[in-house]
Amino acid sequence: MIERNNQNQDPWWPRYADRMDGMQASEIRELLKIIDQPGVISFAGGIPDPELFPRDAARQAYEAVLSDPVSASKALQYSVSEGDSDLRAWIVDHMAMQGVACSINNILVTSGSQQGLEFLGKTFISPGDTVLVNAPTYLGALQAFACNQPIYDALATKATNRTAASYRETALSRGSKVSFSYVVPDFANPTGETLTLEERHRELGLVHDLNIPLVEDNPYGQIRFEGDPLPALLALECQRVGSINNSQVIYCGSFSKVFTPGLRVGWVCASKEIIQRLCLIKQASDLNSPAINQRVMHWLAEREFGNQIAKTKASYGAKRDAMLAALEKYMPIDVDWTHPQGGMFIWLTLPESKDAGQLLDRSLKEVGVAFVPGQAFYADKSGKNKVRLSYSLPTVDTIEEGITKLAGLLKAP
Amino acid sequence: MIERNNQNQDPWWPRYADRMDGMQASEIRELLKIIDQPGVISFAGGIPDPELFPRDAARQAYEAVLSDPVSASKALQYSVSEGDSDLRAWIVDHMAMQGVACSINNILVTSGSQQGLEFLGKTFISPGDTVLVNAPTYLGALQAFACNQPIYDALATKATNRTAASYRETALSRGSKVSFSYVVPDFANPTGETLTLEERHRELGLVHDLNIPLVEDNPYGQIRFEGDPLPALLALECQRVGSINNSQVIYCGSFSKVFTPGLRVGWVCASKEIIQRLCLIKQASDLNSPAINQRVMHWLAEREFGNQIAKTKASYGAKRDAMLAALEKYMPIDVDWTHPQGGMFIWLTLPESKDAGQLLDRSLKEVGVAFVPGQAFYADKSGKNKVRLSYSLPTVDTIEEGITKLAGLLKAP
Repeated sequence: MIERNNQNQDPWWPRYADRMDGMQASEIRELLKIIDQPGVISFAGGIPDPELFPRDAARQAYEAVLSDPVSASKALQYSVSEGDSDLRAWIVDHMAMQGVACSINNILVTSGSQQGLEFLGKTFISPGDTVLVNAPTYLGALQAFACNQPIYDALATKATNRTAASYRETALSRGSKVSFSYVVPDFANPTGETLTLEERHRELGLVHDLNIPLVEDNPYGQIRFEGDPLPALLALECQRVGSINNSQVIYCGSFSKVFTPGLRVGWVCASKEIIQRLCLIKQASDLNSPAINQRVMHWLAEREFGNQIAKTKASYGAKRDAMLAALEKYMPIDVDWTHPQGGMFIWLTLPESKDAGQLLDRSLKEVGVAFVPGQAFYADKSGKNKVRLSYSLPTVDTIEEGITKLAGLLKAP
Repeated sequence: MIERNNQNQDPWWPRYADRMDGMQASEIRELLKIIDQPGVISFAGGIPDPELFPRDAARQAYEAVLSDPVSASKALQYSVSEGDSDLRAWIVDHMAMQGVACSINNILVTSGSQQGLEFLGKTFISPGDTVLVNAPTYLGALQAFACNQPIYDALATKATNRTAASYRETALSRGSKVSFSYVVPDFANPTGETLTLEERHRELGLVHDLNIPLVEDNPYGQIRFEGDPLPALLALECQRVGSINNSQVIYCGSFSKVFTPGLRVGWVCASKEIIQRLCLIKQASDLNSPAINQRVMHWLAEREFGNQIAKTKASYGAKRDAMLAALEKYMPIDVDWTHPQGGMFIWLTLPESKDAGQLLDRSLKEVGVAFVPGQAFYADKSGKNKVRLSYSLPTVDTIEEGITKLAGLLKAP
């Protein structure tokens, strides 16, 4: 089931462990290096708008942490692997507002939610295991899991004929077992779509039938422009099983999309046993996340969270509106797209005959517009006619200009 | 060879991947939680003295990075996995001063050198592989490697009858192969000892005979109080093989012991192929180390490195002198210890009949002095009569007081 790649010209290749076989460079990150040029309108990188970063507040926060000698000494020293206890207490309150009752023993601070994903893959995925992910799914999660050598099955969100038994049988037919599942429930990367309440309950039922963990990755949930918030999967699970300490859902949160990704602060919220386990992994991986950044993030979260959410929603909401309006106005009739109620992404479906990779080449060359071809987000590399557009970084004006140009290309023979 | 532990009361245990079997909490970090009490004289934690942290310079550095809008936006944004290019360029110059000619393509910035060790274990160690480490060795390295399920053989530093063939045969007899080796050449944790030039050449010869990587972990090398610096293993290897890009040595460096561990900035210096490989792992693990901390560390390194080294050497040098003098004055004749020329540790050998774990219990209870029992640093859990003393954190006066008390206990019947 696991085959050794005959990869690249690296003379070290024969000496690497087999787990290196599946690890490849992120197409997006490689792409970003190429398109990061003046004049290109980029809908590619799913990164926040630096205009929204709390720059002055961050200055004040670092100054506040470092100007007091006792606080500074702590901020510049090694610290506990679990994370700063004030920050964890803030996260406990934040989770409570999402309907999750927990204590700081249910929280581990990680270096962004990416690190949470990597730790969870390491904890649960044995080589050859089947992992359930949506098709498409977040590319970074596929990368985080890769060195554990999983195989994938496509986790359905809509009602289908896929049951726990069908996932089990499919795995068995490939000599595998289902051990792990992963979803982005709110404004998913790359589609911008959100699971309905019914779909959330269905996912929970499934992972209970399969007796596997469900990782809920929620970096965008706070950035909702319209519609009512839906309960986190972890909140529904806590209702279902009575306590977070019985939960099969493991929640990954992040300050990257709302505050700043530069401090690399995220968290995992889960049963205390899983947090203890992840804490051991944290210790072995990098001892602890930078204490100073955790102190600063706590300072920012306490004072600026509400403002920052409001600012981010207003900005990305207007940009989404601009992109949807431009798509509506300029795109040919045979192109379809999602209507996200929050987050940073719109997902285009081109006619079956179109290849988004080829379109990107032409688009960069002829009109200077960048996006990410959808294929990158499929574990099975399907989705040739899909396109991920991010509206977080460009201005409203460049969004209209870029969509006009992209639509022109698609209309051209 | 690899047996499943029947570990703990964690209800999740049956669902964890096998690689979790070897992961245990660091005895030191658990110990530090207990002894971190007022009144205890601690020689336990191998952590830097916060009095030496460049507090004011760090304030200035954060202010400098955040006060300029362009610089602030970059510092608070996602960044490349390789690390900040200015910081990497500084590290290139720093490595050149140690006799290693390299370019920024040979440098990856990591979240402390611990992260470098974790990445290297992941890259090279397959389950059941034999890893060569000194006995004793750095506990954090054993933890970093643990989830790859290695077995260990004791790497000799003195001239012995252990040859490449003998390591190979020992591994073979255990159904294993030798795939990886690890040393701390300068003022090692836990012994404080330094490899001689002859020993360095012998280690290089061995890893060439075995055709395996040698990880050179060098967090303390800059903190030398006396004697002449010895060339890094990587410098000798570059001479031997002509270029870093042919090197089998992989160097892990850190700013934690000289500047501050709170920013979590370290690096790996190796052949460009290995750096590319580690960069993929970095991407999958946490995308990038905090950009802001890398900018700040560059600012500090450019302006303060010389001062900081001088300050650290003066302080730890005086503390080592105090500890050696107190040991000389108060310890019973049947206790032996190392004479480190730098770094943070002295290593005691008690009479064979003594158990350092029991001594610690008594020491905490009866005289309020803490240290780390040596057993933690042996892959095979030998070393019952060994003691690690760290002199970096206590003052000169408390060092004398603590050693007096510890010696009193050892003299008591």
